[in-house]
Amino acid sequence: MRVIRLDVEYEGTDFHGYAPQPGLRTVGGEIEGVLARVLGESIRAVPGARTDAGVHARGQVVSFETRSETPAQEIRRALNALLGKDVSVLGAGEAAPGFDARRAARSRRYAYAIWNAPERTVWHRRCTWHVEAPLDVPAMEAACQPLVGMYDFAAFRTHRSQDDPNRTTVRRVLGATWRRDEDVPAIIRFEIEADGFLRHMVRAIVGSAALVGEQKLPIGAMGEMLARGERASAGPTAPAQGLTLLAVTY
Amino acid sequence: MRVIRLDVEYEGTDFHGYAPQPGLRTVGGEIEGVLARVLGESIRAVPGARTDAGVHARGQVVSFETRSETPAQEIRRALNALLGKDVSVLGAGEAAPGFDARRAARSRRYAYAIWNAPERTVWHRRCTWHVEAPLDVPAMEAACQPLVGMYDFAAFRTHRSQDDPNRTTVRRVLGATWRRDEDVPAIIRFEIEADGFLRHMVRAIVGSAALVGEQKLPIGAMGEMLARGERASAGPTAPAQGLTLLAVTY
Repeated sequence: MRVIRLDVEYEGTDFHGYAPQPGLRTVGGEIEGVLARVLGESIRAVPGARTDAGVHARGQVVSFETRSETPAQEIRRALNALLGKDVSVLGAGEAAPGFDARRAARSRRYAYAIWNAPERTVWHRRCTWHVEAPLDVPAMEAACQPLVGMYDFAAFRTHRSQDDPNRTTVRRVLGATWRRDEDVPAIIRFEIEADGFLRHMVRAIVGSAALVGEQKLPIGAMGEMLARGERASAGPTAPAQGLTLLAVTY
Repeated sequence: MRVIRLDVEYEGTDFHGYAPQPGLRTVGGEIEGVLARVLGESIRAVPGARTDAGVHARGQVVSFETRSETPAQEIRRALNALLGKDVSVLGAGEAAPGFDARRAARSRRYAYAIWNAPERTVWHRRCTWHVEAPLDVPAMEAACQPLVGMYDFAAFRTHRSQDDPNRTTVRRVLGATWRRDEDVPAIIRFEIEADGFLRHMVRAIVGSAALVGEQKLPIGAMGEMLARGERASAGPTAPAQGLTLLAVTY
């Protein structure tokens, strides 16, 4: 069976996330629908990282198996001609037999953008979270350093967890940085890379770090949350629209 | 009578232009509606430049007369609290009695952005025109230089002109440049400043310049269109979403 790898970007605003859901517009549902039409067979398109409703992607990777002999570049052109304008296939190519974008992934990298100014933004409103109070960026950076390493991240996951309780909540975070954007100083950008993420993990970390940035929590608070391991002790979950999947590494 | 000046920005995607029209969402209609609610009187909010449906603004200026004594900063806060998220009031202040944003304007500056790449853009799609064929930017720059000066721009206006035939079509263009964006090389940006513009004038100039950029017309073509003065001789009108009002000068 042939395996095709797609490199995909999308603005998540008008999607109910990646995972196909009946009756809802999803990235995966849209890609699978177009592939079925173009290739004449039912396709299951597996993402390197599942993204929730409203979350964007610049470097999503999608793999699927097909019996068709349609060249990869032709598949790519057909997808871009038939998909909505808020999703784009940047590349398409043959992958090794058995390649699965999700199982083969070694790490995922996400960015989270905060619009940190008293006034809102017209131009960046779809891809940032608006925080009016001035944020202390070096404090947020320092607060997140205890998260780098291999730990149980149970404190930083979705409130209403549908995860299997028998599944591990241990993940390895490879790096976490907070930087002010050079071109647009009102934008503060968080980047985090890990072998994998729990559901809402990045957004729970960002919500907690923002409390540190507003000096409502001390710099050591996040390390304590991590050690305590209870979701209730961490900050609120930051909204989806600030989050972008940057890359999946293999 | 007190006169207030507002500095306003908006993304034009979801507006039917500035000018209030019954039953349609317009920038002017939205601003006048909120002002009437906040100030308790009927308000006419005059823009420094009329923008068409889909056209954006970073430096629109709006003036209105009011009998109210509400401080300008309070008006600004109320507008930003009640207006849609795609429009923002950047500043508000007292203007000289009799100030009228349209009549007092000395010049208007517009930018037009082209996404010039074989593939479309997810991120810049709302504020650019997608031209797939490679464009020769220096040729477009050279082609537009004959437009700088005081001329009859009848060749570069709306096809279905509702303008009064007795009104002059003479305008003074102060400058016109084409540049490739430094950060995003796929974006080509046109900037043009004039004492005033005919309806669709920037978009007709851009549509013609794109034909030069694709080498479908020689560099001298635009000077000839200008001299001929017939709309039919110029290129097609470029789409609205690439156009942004940058500034109005007083």
